[in-house]
Amino acid sequence: MASPLPTPVPAQLALGAALRAEFPILDQKVNGLPLVYLDNAATSQKPRAVLDALSRCYTEYNANVHRGVHALSAKATNEYEEARAKVAAFIGASTSREVVIVRNATEGINLVSNTWGAANIKQGDEIILSVAEHHANLVPWQLLAARTGAVLRHVRLTPDKSQLDMDHFRSLLSPRTRLVSLVHVSNVLGCVLDTAYVAEQARRVGAKLLLDCCQSVPHMPVDVCSLGADWIVASSHKFCGPSGVGFLWGRYDVLESMEPWMGGGEMIADVFLDQSTYAPPPMRFEAGTPAIAEAIGMGAAAEWLQQLGMDRVHAFEEEIGTYLYERLVAVSPRVTVYGPRPGAPRGRASLAAFNVEGLHATDVSTLLDMAGVAVRSGHHCAQPLHRELGVPASARASAYIYNTAAEIDTFIEALKDTIKFFDDAHGGVA
Amino acid sequence: MASPLPTPVPAQLALGAALRAEFPILDQKVNGLPLVYLDNAATSQKPRAVLDALSRCYTEYNANVHRGVHALSAKATNEYEEARAKVAAFIGASTSREVVIVRNATEGINLVSNTWGAANIKQGDEIILSVAEHHANLVPWQLLAARTGAVLRHVRLTPDKSQLDMDHFRSLLSPRTRLVSLVHVSNVLGCVLDTAYVAEQARRVGAKLLLDCCQSVPHMPVDVCSLGADWIVASSHKFCGPSGVGFLWGRYDVLESMEPWMGGGEMIADVFLDQSTYAPPPMRFEAGTPAIAEAIGMGAAAEWLQQLGMDRVHAFEEEIGTYLYERLVAVSPRVTVYGPRPGAPRGRASLAAFNVEGLHATDVSTLLDMAGVAVRSGHHCAQPLHRELGVPASARASAYIYNTAAEIDTFIEALKDTIKFFDDAHGGVA
Repeated sequence: MASPLPTPVPAQLALGAALRAEFPILDQKVNGLPLVYLDNAATSQKPRAVLDALSRCYTEYNANVHRGVHALSAKATNEYEEARAKVAAFIGASTSREVVIVRNATEGINLVSNTWGAANIKQGDEIILSVAEHHANLVPWQLLAARTGAVLRHVRLTPDKSQLDMDHFRSLLSPRTRLVSLVHVSNVLGCVLDTAYVAEQARRVGAKLLLDCCQSVPHMPVDVCSLGADWIVASSHKFCGPSGVGFLWGRYDVLESMEPWMGGGEMIADVFLDQSTYAPPPMRFEAGTPAIAEAIGMGAAAEWLQQLGMDRVHAFEEEIGTYLYERLVAVSPRVTVYGPRPGAPRGRASLAAFNVEGLHATDVSTLLDMAGVAVRSGHHCAQPLHRELGVPASARASAYIYNTAAEIDTFIEALKDTIKFFDDAHGGVA
Repeated sequence: MASPLPTPVPAQLALGAALRAEFPILDQKVNGLPLVYLDNAATSQKPRAVLDALSRCYTEYNANVHRGVHALSAKATNEYEEARAKVAAFIGASTSREVVIVRNATEGINLVSNTWGAANIKQGDEIILSVAEHHANLVPWQLLAARTGAVLRHVRLTPDKSQLDMDHFRSLLSPRTRLVSLVHVSNVLGCVLDTAYVAEQARRVGAKLLLDCCQSVPHMPVDVCSLGADWIVASSHKFCGPSGVGFLWGRYDVLESMEPWMGGGEMIADVFLDQSTYAPPPMRFEAGTPAIAEAIGMGAAAEWLQQLGMDRVHAFEEEIGTYLYERLVAVSPRVTVYGPRPGAPRGRASLAAFNVEGLHATDVSTLLDMAGVAVRSGHHCAQPLHRELGVPASARASAYIYNTAAEIDTFIEALKDTIKFFDDAHGGVA
């Protein structure tokens, strides 16, 4: 499976090799071969800085937060709130009070839907989504629409199906539009939204804007002050942090206008038997004991990435993403990679969802796994998008900061072997 | 502060000393003195078995679950579902499909309120709670009542204010009662609910029964098949597991009757642009990437406790709880400990919420912290109960399996010193 590098490796790609020692999980064999982890769009691995933060929490100062005066509780509370501040700094928020700690991006979207949405969306109001959304940005609005009689509009793809059609988006906007909720970077197409244009157009009709930043926050500088959104959501586990935690950022005046969603401890001011008063944001939206250690781990991840430099991360990913794309399309004319080409105006993410004519995506990923290469297959929680693409599923290789050009080469060689294996088994295809 | 044990230490209390080596966090000094952690009702510490399970997940097989065919994803999925099975076994559930993994008990109650509650509670319907509920079992029902016009009824305390008045409970039941939602073990009074009676009475009027088991699941055998409840909730962090995860158990036919709450990946069957179909329980209620490592840690905690033996845990806690209570009431006639005496028919939990006449609870816990003793002060998320008790706050010492009689003694001596300190400062009280 080893092969000499067929093209010169760009200098930027040295970053991946340099960072690998920080990620202990990468140093292992799968099916007897070195692990090549290319399922980063599903979840990222965790650097020692995050593992150490988690370990320190549980072995040095684990306690419940916000409720105790003893030393461990004071330390845990400080670390938890410091983590919120680190996330705020990571995304350029003007105050950490704009950062609500949730389980994952999905919960963040459901929170907006059940608070702002429930209070502001009425029958006949329109919500603009797209055909490329993750299920997390479709189902909550379907549930809201079913309750309220709101109408869902979906931005379609450009004719080449590589990205969202901004002309169509513009045509959907009207005075009935109350909310625009779109994916910043598609987890299948890898296309990058023109957020400046979207924000300007949404503002023009007085609509609120929510951005699903699950695939942007881990990979590029995201600055909420310049993004023009009212809310963004992201999941910690995709940006080097623990599972079970993520964040909803919201403009403070917007958060302040929102009623509580879940009720319980932490989110209250005063509780009486029949009614209660509520804490200001962000606590208003954090009912019960939060994911304390996990939030602290998320803060450590945000700090680690910020120290690494998101410009540098993005530059690396543009190079490795281009390398991944170019090597993949060169495998065979039977390989289709979805989304824009790397030279597209706003670039493309370092992921490649693809299909090989005549092969099932699941068979492809199963054979790649035999070679130690982890890629995902399926609908990637984007069934409607796959229907638009005319396929039930795709395989997806997605790189992150610790991947190397040599790993891309291993993946490509394994893919060639996979195609050959099935061609031989089937007596040759095409 | 060191003092000889004033009473013979019961033999059972050897367990605490034997287990301490499993909890690395306990071996530290706070303010120059050995940590005495007596804030276990707020959160428990984690044994090596749980720390190791978390570490193995993040350093050996971290991957997203349910969506990948590659080796790491298959391993992560197996471990996640195995953790669900361990929790099911821990509480005697007949199938792991009855275990929904949530962030915490609070989310579990909100889930029931927003699904079963929203579909079944109408104007004029009655929900029976109690004055002793944690805010997590008050606020969600207040929010539901505000939306539906339902009526909340609250079981009062017995005249001695030590526990719930079961005669009053019975008098509140009527054909209008749709739901009874009560705390199994009070986090302030330490009283234990007569669940068999409550379940029988609720069934008599056709009401559903939810039990808040946050303070029972960690401390005594809880068997859902004999409990008679329709749902129970508990938080992992209180039973030796990680933060950010907990469970809702529900009778499968009841879960199956419930519509989804949060929308997103994982909880769906098929997603179309305008509507979706949903997975069966428990997946129906687990939208988005779950708290994977945390659920695995919760499973490890459940397994560890089950291997230790919950009968043994309970016997230990009865002894150390009695020791704690008896030593505390012997400190001074100025000390009031809330809840039933240890000899009460269903016992009392190994926690003691108390006040010292003439002192503020916060001052007490602050001074105890100076002596290395961690107790909580405040309303313990039970403001209405504190109003019933006629105090704004209390201090609370709560023991768990790793505490020792010597630690109780240290606490008692520190409390005596605290009382003396304030008496001297105030020129003597009473």
